Amino acid sequence: MQGLMQDWPLTVDKVLDHAAEWHGEREVVTRSVEGPIVRVTYGEIRDRAKRLSNALLGFGIQPGDRVATLAWNSARHIEAWYAIMGIGAVCHTLNPRLFADQLCYIINHAGDRIIFTDLTFLPFLIENRARMPTVERFIVLTDDDHLKGSGLEGALASETLIARHDADCVWGGFDEQAACGLCYTSGTTGNPKGVLYSHRSNFLHTLVTLQTDVMGLSVKDTVLAVVPMFHANAWGLTFSCPAVGAKLIMPGAKMDGASIHELLETEKVTFSAAVPTVWQMLLAHMRETKATLTTLKRVVIGGSAVPEAILRAFHDDYGVDVVHAWGMTETSPLGTLSTPTPEVAALSFDDQIPYKLKQGRPPVGVQLKLTGDDGAAKPRDGTSFGRLSIRGPFIAGAYFKGDGGNLLDEEGFFDTGDVATIDQAGYMQITDRAKDVIKSGGEWISSIEIENIAAGHPKALLAAVIGVAHPKWDERPLLLVRLRDGETAEPGEFLRYLDGKIAKWWMPDDVVFVDDIPLGATGKIDKKLIRQRFEGYLLPTAAKAG
Amino acid sequence: MQGLMQDWPLTVDKVLDHAAEWHGEREVVTRSVEGPIVRVTYGEIRDRAKRLSNALLGFGIQPGDRVATLAWNSARHIEAWYAIMGIGAVCHTLNPRLFADQLCYIINHAGDRIIFTDLTFLPFLIENRARMPTVERFIVLTDDDHLKGSGLEGALASETLIARHDADCVWGGFDEQAACGLCYTSGTTGNPKGVLYSHRSNFLHTLVTLQTDVMGLSVKDTVLAVVPMFHANAWGLTFSCPAVGAKLIMPGAKMDGASIHELLETEKVTFSAAVPTVWQMLLAHMRETKATLTTLKRVVIGGSAVPEAILRAFHDDYGVDVVHAWGMTETSPLGTLSTPTPEVAALSFDDQIPYKLKQGRPPVGVQLKLTGDDGAAKPRDGTSFGRLSIRGPFIAGAYFKGDGGNLLDEEGFFDTGDVATIDQAGYMQITDRAKDVIKSGGEWISSIEIENIAAGHPKALLAAVIGVAHPKWDERPLLLVRLRDGETAEPGEFLRYLDGKIAKWWMPDDVVFVDDIPLGATGKIDKKLIRQRFEGYLLPTAAKAG
Repeated sequence: MQGLMQDWPLTVDKVLDHAAEWHGEREVVTRSVEGPIVRVTYGEIRDRAKRLSNALLGFGIQPGDRVATLAWNSARHIEAWYAIMGIGAVCHTLNPRLFADQLCYIINHAGDRIIFTDLTFLPFLIENRARMPTVERFIVLTDDDHLKGSGLEGALASETLIARHDADCVWGGFDEQAACGLCYTSGTTGNPKGVLYSHRSNFLHTLVTLQTDVMGLSVKDTVLAVVPMFHANAWGLTFSCPAVGAKLIMPGAKMDGASIHELLETEKVTFSAAVPTVWQMLLAHMRETKATLTTLKRVVIGGSAVPEAILRAFHDDYGVDVVHAWGMTETSPLGTLSTPTPEVAALSFDDQIPYKLKQGRPPVGVQLKLTGDDGAAKPRDGTSFGRLSIRGPFIAGAYFKGDGGNLLDEEGFFDTGDVATIDQAGYMQITDRAKDVIKSGGEWISSIEIENIAAGHPKALLAAVIGVAHPKWDERPLLLVRLRDGETAEPGEFLRYLDGKIAKWWMPDDVVFVDDIPLGATGKIDKKLIRQRFEGYLLPTAAKAG
Repeated sequence: MQGLMQDWPLTVDKVLDHAAEWHGEREVVTRSVEGPIVRVTYGEIRDRAKRLSNALLGFGIQPGDRVATLAWNSARHIEAWYAIMGIGAVCHTLNPRLFADQLCYIINHAGDRIIFTDLTFLPFLIENRARMPTVERFIVLTDDDHLKGSGLEGALASETLIARHDADCVWGGFDEQAACGLCYTSGTTGNPKGVLYSHRSNFLHTLVTLQTDVMGLSVKDTVLAVVPMFHANAWGLTFSCPAVGAKLIMPGAKMDGASIHELLETEKVTFSAAVPTVWQMLLAHMRETKATLTTLKRVVIGGSAVPEAILRAFHDDYGVDVVHAWGMTETSPLGTLSTPTPEVAALSFDDQIPYKLKQGRPPVGVQLKLTGDDGAAKPRDGTSFGRLSIRGPFIAGAYFKGDGGNLLDEEGFFDTGDVATIDQAGYMQITDRAKDVIKSGGEWISSIEIENIAAGHPKALLAAVIGVAHPKWDERPLLLVRLRDGETAEPGEFLRYLDGKIAKWWMPDDVVFVDDIPLGATGKIDKKLIRQRFEGYLLPTAAKAG
């Protein structure tokens, strides 16, 4: 027997409709690529987005067609998103930080017909125009005055299209399972793969993140969306802010400490979200200039693990609460947050820190599974490692065009590729990438945990740990250290430094000093390359055992 | 093109699964029907509910079968809900405050196969057993000791069934559109009609209500669910509390001021929800006993309009924030809430009151429409009346078994039967029932607004206003007054009292003093009966005009 409630497909055009109808005067403020601070309202954004939709329809864009954006966070970028999604086309966000080869691969793989872009990216597009044959035209998020003489053939200014078309355009009316957005993973192994979000998944992600214990946004918030719209949908902020009518501040291209601080203060921001490096730059700027924060209450930090120094500086020096979050492009991106349970909230700040440093707990709608190599569940004791899998209505079920084959296990969970622990209070902590974890005698050793501690040695500039083949234990840890310029050291200094900080059986079997520890495009240690370099390395313990 | 996210049907069993897995130790505390305060955890509730599911399967309950509950708010009642819904059966909540005839009609109309009930209701069930032939058995939410000698043939104690069955039961696995709950409207005209909720509608209602600006519940909240589970799903609390892991307090049968106050204080309640009469009883008790409230922060009040005295008493005397909410059985029930926009929040408390007295603003997922008799939209100016229609994924599309025919207009909106205004700030206010509004010269007059003011006259005990036929204006208002015992008055006293408080053209054309103003079962003025009594009444102005 079916229920008898209304048929109301969860399509994201309704989010902006809600904002325009019930929060129509609320502002979206942008530091524009052209320079000035620009103010529009949600009502104006819907009107302008509908005009752009008519322009896209005029260019023959059909439901399911991919239309890309290569742009900074701005109100114009939001208009492009809703213009594309409202008519059932797929908004493909391009990450300008990728290499040209990767971008061209992604554009061709997606088959993008149109690219919305900022003035910033015209040199790249001009240089690589011939490498993107599916692209029929470019719409530059600016006006004719700024566009003229740009040299990108056939490029149109979005303001011209907006002026030329009317705002009478019907949005929605399609299935909520329709594709809505496309975002490629950074692809540390193999080619980037596309995650194809649906209207339903984005709408549900919006509702789940709006819970008080998750993002908890309110109409009374002013939100600075530092996290880019090309970085897993700006963690949903360009949906969740209009959904509740929160005032939204878009930083454009400028993410340096001074620019971010200026927006935080002049716009009276209460909430923000970004990766740790942005906050490091902000904190450094504020220390230098003795600046203060008068309105900011909460920041959500994700993308990589939050350093304790950031947590403490925000709390101790500025009275700002940090929420550590974890997710992936494949998870829309929200997976877990370190918002406190009442038991954790009752602890002193110092005692809360271990929980705040973990990636946190899942909200309703996100299921986690922690399993060993045998597929059996690992205990939630805070020390047992397992592969982390995830399930829910906004978690990827497959990649675009079937890349990577079947992603789900027999229970429908997606393997994150991470290794994690979950403690008794339900806090998950990423301990390693599954491919980097060291499997010693049937037990797992976190390469990241050892290298993070080793990197704290005063003589170390960088440290890396990999597993090396061992006849008795399968694998044993090898520590590589790049010393600071002018330093010398012998292995025992590092082993003594680790002693007592890690389990005895985690102790590296050898320490090697190297001139170079290779980093990948995203700044993370390239373990794959290190493993290649040390293939066949004979540990002294292996020699003995053999 | 379809999105490629996971298939994860929104079924409510996942809500309790989430609570058991991530908030397994959080308590649900009940003032039991047997007397003592009883504590169980979400983990135990899931375990016990699964045992009950196996009992229901053993009784041959199939997906879509209706299983009723006639019970007070308790953990056992929650167990029955999830036991029923988890296996795809339909949980039909019966309102014990209805007359026996109505209850029997509803049980037969629904075709309930089993009724879960409390000891309280055994006399009613014994007396009316023969009138509910579809009911095969009764499960009493108690143990054998309390049940024995009850005299209800074939009744079983839930505790016996829980002890007899194991907890290994697979929930879910059906379509999210599957029917999940059934609740009949009180039916002021004609027979009660059934609203058939789906798993999807309840799940989405849960997510929408959990937003910070709506119910805003947190794992850190302790929630006293005074609003009954048979009253439009306890406004969703028995879904939303487990969804976030909030501690839940269930008052059982005792809703008097002293009992409610005791639970608020001993359990350190932070949030509660109930109709105005419950709060009136609590406030009266606290005034008498000079009691205080040490932990309560917020109360949501709905079911009927919030009197200003309650708002002020909570704010001024106890520091508790009141949120006025509006909804219907047909809206799951959330429609609007008076949570403040930043502009309203910036006002003094006195200046906020007019907004807090309104029914408020809709969250994302609820669409409102205000239309005149011609179907055209009314302006949102705070004074123009229109019929209020509503649309969304948790709004009724049809009644059970097709009762009442097609409910939706050509745009898919459900007509609430209410007349309302919406002001420039988006706050909706119910001004009348559509059938009671007085249509004078093409304009609408609120009968409720006039009678509320007239009832404030010191000589008035009750006042009612109806529209009476008029040859020139179609209808004109007639004011009926029941004076306080021993008072006498003449019409001019009431007209002078109204003068300046309402528009000139709203002034009643006549005032009639009556011995009796009839009230319906829910305590509201029975306008239908009054209109029958005054059919053909000749207004003095009509005599002149004619």
